[in-house]
Amino acid sequence: MKKKHSFLTKNIIIASDHAGFELKESIKKKLENLGLNILDLGVDNKKVSVDYPIYAKKMSKKINSKNMGILICGSGIGMSIASNRFKNVRSALVNSSTLSKLSRKHNNANIICLAARFVSKKVAIQCILSFLTTKFEAGRHLRRVKLLS
Amino acid sequence: MKKKHSFLTKNIIIASDHAGFELKESIKKKLENLGLNILDLGVDNKKVSVDYPIYAKKMSKKINSKNMGILICGSGIGMSIASNRFKNVRSALVNSSTLSKLSRKHNNANIICLAARFVSKKVAIQCILSFLTTKFEAGRHLRRVKLLS
Repeated sequence: MKKKHSFLTKNIIIASDHAGFELKESIKKKLENLGLNILDLGVDNKKVSVDYPIYAKKMSKKINSKNMGILICGSGIGMSIASNRFKNVRSALVNSSTLSKLSRKHNNANIICLAARFVSKKVAIQCILSFLTTKFEAGRHLRRVKLLS
Repeated sequence: MKKKHSFLTKNIIIASDHAGFELKESIKKKLENLGLNILDLGVDNKKVSVDYPIYAKKMSKKINSKNMGILICGSGIGMSIASNRFKNVRSALVNSSTLSKLSRKHNNANIICLAARFVSKKVAIQCILSFLTTKFEAGRHLRRVKLLS
């Protein structure tokens, strides 16, 4: 039987640079199969070298309380720096389901960053499913999150 | 014989929340033994629960071309979000020497974020030594880094 997920939102935005293109395509397919609405901001091939800050900016401008984002580059670091420039964004670079859950529980993260060169497709999907289904704990963490805006 | 390191700067700023306090103290001792000048912005004990954005802000305001920073919290995620709000900062959450080197080569990162609950003291030191000794590659990466400011 297919596992049922309780997604926090059905509206997912995804973007990557050339290094993250293949992982982006795999993730997109998987999430579409789970019934989520995916807005893909590119890149649309892996052949042309592009600049990650441009894709992070495109995504960050669209993030609001009704959607969540997935950003992918080679190490995840560039995407994480670029997206956290935006005050409406809390972007978490993670490499495990545990860290992914923590980024939701403690930081109310709304973008997950993944390192295409360092996580397998399987782990990436685990991270994303944890990210899209774990609620923010609020409490003392709400005070801290407010200090980020 | 003691290994000689070619540090990019001798001026290191360090800060953590309560969860990162013990790792911060170990790192400080190690770096002082290597002859580096350490400015410790706190926290100064692990007993009082503090808010990571306050320490990230203190550090970020002091970062310039003549120093580098180390930020530690439980997951590293909160510190990474909070510090990347500042345009003079490029803050990289890493958990391996390889990622740490990449954050310097490709992103010219000037703050390293560490997850006290997920890296050993040994790995933390490896990450930091790579961070403090690896040069930025510039080239195409310079164009991308410029887009971050």
